[in-house]
Amino acid sequence: MRIVIPLFDGFTALDAVGPYEVLRMLPGAETVFAAEAVGPVRDSAKTLALTADASFEEITACDVLVVPGGRGVRDFLADAGLIEWVRRTHATTTWTTSVCTGSLALAAAGLLDGLTAACHWSAAEELNGLGAVYTEERVVFHDERRIVTSAGVSSGIDMALALAGRIAGRTTAEAIQLMIEYDPQPPFDAGSLGKAPQAAKDLLKAGLNR
Amino acid sequence: MRIVIPLFDGFTALDAVGPYEVLRMLPGAETVFAAEAVGPVRDSAKTLALTADASFEEITACDVLVVPGGRGVRDFLADAGLIEWVRRTHATTTWTTSVCTGSLALAAAGLLDGLTAACHWSAAEELNGLGAVYTEERVVFHDERRIVTSAGVSSGIDMALALAGRIAGRTTAEAIQLMIEYDPQPPFDAGSLGKAPQAAKDLLKAGLNR
Repeated sequence: MRIVIPLFDGFTALDAVGPYEVLRMLPGAETVFAAEAVGPVRDSAKTLALTADASFEEITACDVLVVPGGRGVRDFLADAGLIEWVRRTHATTTWTTSVCTGSLALAAAGLLDGLTAACHWSAAEELNGLGAVYTEERVVFHDERRIVTSAGVSSGIDMALALAGRIAGRTTAEAIQLMIEYDPQPPFDAGSLGKAPQAAKDLLKAGLNR
Repeated sequence: MRIVIPLFDGFTALDAVGPYEVLRMLPGAETVFAAEAVGPVRDSAKTLALTADASFEEITACDVLVVPGGRGVRDFLADAGLIEWVRRTHATTTWTTSVCTGSLALAAAGLLDGLTAACHWSAAEELNGLGAVYTEERVVFHDERRIVTSAGVSSGIDMALALAGRIAGRTTAEAIQLMIEYDPQPPFDAGSLGKAPQAAKDLLKAGLNR
């Protein structure tokens, strides 16, 4: 089972690495990070680089596609060749998935037309503008379309565990969850727009170090 | 504020990237991945490589040290020079932290002598053998020693958010939590030894694809 995770300048590292750490443990999994060219690809903060071991051109098919998001996804959207690559690769997959603003890339490829989809909360309108229907759910499966979208950044872990359950059964997914000791205990309760206090939202608007 | 994350062959990617994605957003944060030599460093599955932008030799001080774990940590432990580097760097930090079996490196450096500490559940005995006292808690702060340890893999996100709160205040930590949309909704409840069903533990013992 081949899992492909496309990278692009300005991706968000946790969007990619969360699902990677789960899906790579599936029986028979072989994971490949791909990009325009083989070599290091910088995240949005530019302080992290993940290596792409294959070029997009080399990837003609895969079983699971995981498209991460990040501020750089807008350049990705503007590249017709890349969006065509997503569409072409999707035609070969068992599951096409996205995390965070990676959902914008699926939408731009026409894969979410009229479908409810999850995405980073800050890109809800942008997602709707591309033909999808944003929902606040954390993980959205459309089994009949072989598509799963998930909310911002950290949601990719939940998405990947749910997907692991569909692919290899509940016990395997639970074994992976135990392996990564995913028993979340957030010290605060501010992980969604509905839960975050106004002061935290105001601070985000003013701009964090990102 | 300089944050340093050491990498070594066979590290676990999520151990490093979870805290990275949180701490890099702190005001004034500058994050550096370091390793024996500058360049790509492979994780335990060998299908992911993160770039080290500095060598250990170049890092003489930092404010926050985040030591990830992974199967390769045993080679790290066996390298007296590296353990000495941890000890020397700790002398300069405001906070020295570890995720997963990264706690073994802190223990080997003598930083956890007689202290309760968190670690990946599978390495509890090993941790105790190095002078620490394993606890099942997810995140363990020892403020007077400037040390924080956390449990397996995904726990680094909880640790980093708690640390962000200590460093920059609760509202900043909440803003970061909202930014990474950390509102965990695991599809299963198997994230600790106490919660995982026996079948999942048996499957892990038989060996996943890792």
